[in-house]
Amino acid sequence: MKRLRVELGDRSYPVIVGEGVLEHAGELLRRAGFSTAPIVVSSDRVLGLHGRRLLGSLERAFSKCPVIRIGDGERFKNHQTLAMLYRELLRAGADRRSWIVAFGGGVTGDVAGFAAATYMRGIRYVHVPTTLLGQVDSSIGGKVGINLRQGKNLIGAFHQPSAVLADTAVLQTLPARELASGLFEVVKCGAIRSRPLLAYLEKNLDRVGGCRSDALEHVVASAARIKADVVSRDEREGGLRMILNYGHTVGHALEAATRYRRFTHGEAVGWGMLACVGFGQQLGALTGAEAGRLSALIRRVAPLPALEGIRCGSLWAALARDKKFDSGRIRMVLLRRLGEAIVRNDIEPARLRRFLSGFLAARGEWS
Amino acid sequence: MKRLRVELGDRSYPVIVGEGVLEHAGELLRRAGFSTAPIVVSSDRVLGLHGRRLLGSLERAFSKCPVIRIGDGERFKNHQTLAMLYRELLRAGADRRSWIVAFGGGVTGDVAGFAAATYMRGIRYVHVPTTLLGQVDSSIGGKVGINLRQGKNLIGAFHQPSAVLADTAVLQTLPARELASGLFEVVKCGAIRSRPLLAYLEKNLDRVGGCRSDALEHVVASAARIKADVVSRDEREGGLRMILNYGHTVGHALEAATRYRRFTHGEAVGWGMLACVGFGQQLGALTGAEAGRLSALIRRVAPLPALEGIRCGSLWAALARDKKFDSGRIRMVLLRRLGEAIVRNDIEPARLRRFLSGFLAARGEWS
Repeated sequence: MKRLRVELGDRSYPVIVGEGVLEHAGELLRRAGFSTAPIVVSSDRVLGLHGRRLLGSLERAFSKCPVIRIGDGERFKNHQTLAMLYRELLRAGADRRSWIVAFGGGVTGDVAGFAAATYMRGIRYVHVPTTLLGQVDSSIGGKVGINLRQGKNLIGAFHQPSAVLADTAVLQTLPARELASGLFEVVKCGAIRSRPLLAYLEKNLDRVGGCRSDALEHVVASAARIKADVVSRDEREGGLRMILNYGHTVGHALEAATRYRRFTHGEAVGWGMLACVGFGQQLGALTGAEAGRLSALIRRVAPLPALEGIRCGSLWAALARDKKFDSGRIRMVLLRRLGEAIVRNDIEPARLRRFLSGFLAARGEWS
Repeated sequence: MKRLRVELGDRSYPVIVGEGVLEHAGELLRRAGFSTAPIVVSSDRVLGLHGRRLLGSLERAFSKCPVIRIGDGERFKNHQTLAMLYRELLRAGADRRSWIVAFGGGVTGDVAGFAAATYMRGIRYVHVPTTLLGQVDSSIGGKVGINLRQGKNLIGAFHQPSAVLADTAVLQTLPARELASGLFEVVKCGAIRSRPLLAYLEKNLDRVGGCRSDALEHVVASAARIKADVVSRDEREGGLRMILNYGHTVGHALEAATRYRRFTHGEAVGWGMLACVGFGQQLGALTGAEAGRLSALIRRVAPLPALEGIRCGSLWAALARDKKFDSGRIRMVLLRRLGEAIVRNDIEPARLRRFLSGFLAARGEWS
């Protein structure tokens, strides 16, 4: 087991990564200072696969835990689920000292975390993420929230968890495409902050994809450490934390332009990084050799759904909604070199649009 | 104009109290660092009475402000109003850099503040309270939220405003009973923290009740300063901030036991303080002379609706729901002497219940 830490003064918390963490959840959380049984929020799917291990451990350490079941998937990340959570928390007698264990993927973490952020002006919660994306990214940093009909994550808060427990063994049960989705975020972590992680992935990608436990533990811990470190330095995305959005400007626009149906989040970020690599090279920010190396790694993670049929106009409209070019320039994260990101505030919209038009026309190739 | 300050590190903010603050709102907020027009949240009633003064000033300093109208009164402090606010914020094009002016009483402040706390993970907002209760209490300290069917303020957050502008001139238009409701909270501030404020009230209560502007400005600034000082020392009610709940344990229970129909909040707190004075005297925490002095002042603020027909059983049930006596003892704020509160953790439930039973039977007198 590897133990990291998000350093945020009196809101600091541990991130524990390793195979078998679930079985030790109860004792780990007792040691972290909890003394009463939590209320567990999860989905039928996750409880069916891993529920017994977590609940058994929690119940050995505390007592029987109430369980609130919510739907699985992005369409449940809404007001209805939130209202149901509030109701069930009240029914379970939750008060200011109660705490929640959010056990599942990003949706469970986001909505249960937001319920924790707002129930009686905020109660404690612990993330037990069961997807790779959750373990390396969304469970760390305190971003919680729900979607509105008008857009994703429009309602939310920064509410840091009290602990994150990432059991890499649960990743074995993930569908290959969901594992790959998380791997693109791992590649991103390497790209912005760690050449060693990139080198490890280049050498061990097959072992990671095959869920070899030492390899999984290594990449989850490495990527989670990068996220934890960035969040520790900039909790509310005032500066440094923006580098975590590498590949996301174009990625989000691709997701929106295809109505969130064609790409997983990671795949969209994969395409977004490929675009950034090409654009960065055009701006002279990245050498051809480094650009080629990162692109090759991204391509190796998993095949990306084609860009076929996405018009530059709709991609650009989605990007403009996301970014609001009111200053006349676009802010974008680019790489200075592999392992080192910079936030550029001076991107000329016309130039980016020209590049993206060519990128789409060449179906993701660039020259 | 008097300028106070809530000191909370990088979340510190000014509280500006005085007659005519509304007319200067625009320039005051420009000086506080705002550079774009805010989105104003208010009610028809408040806009009809004072809208032109505030909006005129804001529009001179910025540009035309979008106005979102919400219902007036506790029954609008709910999910429906919140969802409508989100929708209107989106329609107005609000983004992360937008800010809200919450212009109205406690309900407007609470719900608009909660919308600000959760819209796009939190945007800035400014309170412009138009009730005495708002000016001396609810606008300061960042407690925002909404009610659920199951109870008041069950959903909420701590989200500090960027400024509070309290124009004492608007208090002239308050119904007498609402002014009195706020005055009970002013008395509370004196009781827990300031003998000079109590002495001032004893001497000038008629001038305050008659809305003489120097008197209003003095009591609002004094009470707001006490609230600001307490919040600066304990933002999240971990300790000291609890003293602000003097009279509230019994007060809340009285409100709940009468379904929020008989008493204004301040009147319930008035009764709650009378009960605490009597109970404190019984415990030997307050001398008879001091108890008599505070009781006389409370009685002079305004006539309190009778306790008639409130059964001790239902009062006690409401109190138990609020406090959860799981440790076997009740925590209660009492006075050590006038102007000095202490938090007692050792109140024996049976003893308090006996006292309250007698208090109700004697219709609020005690011996």
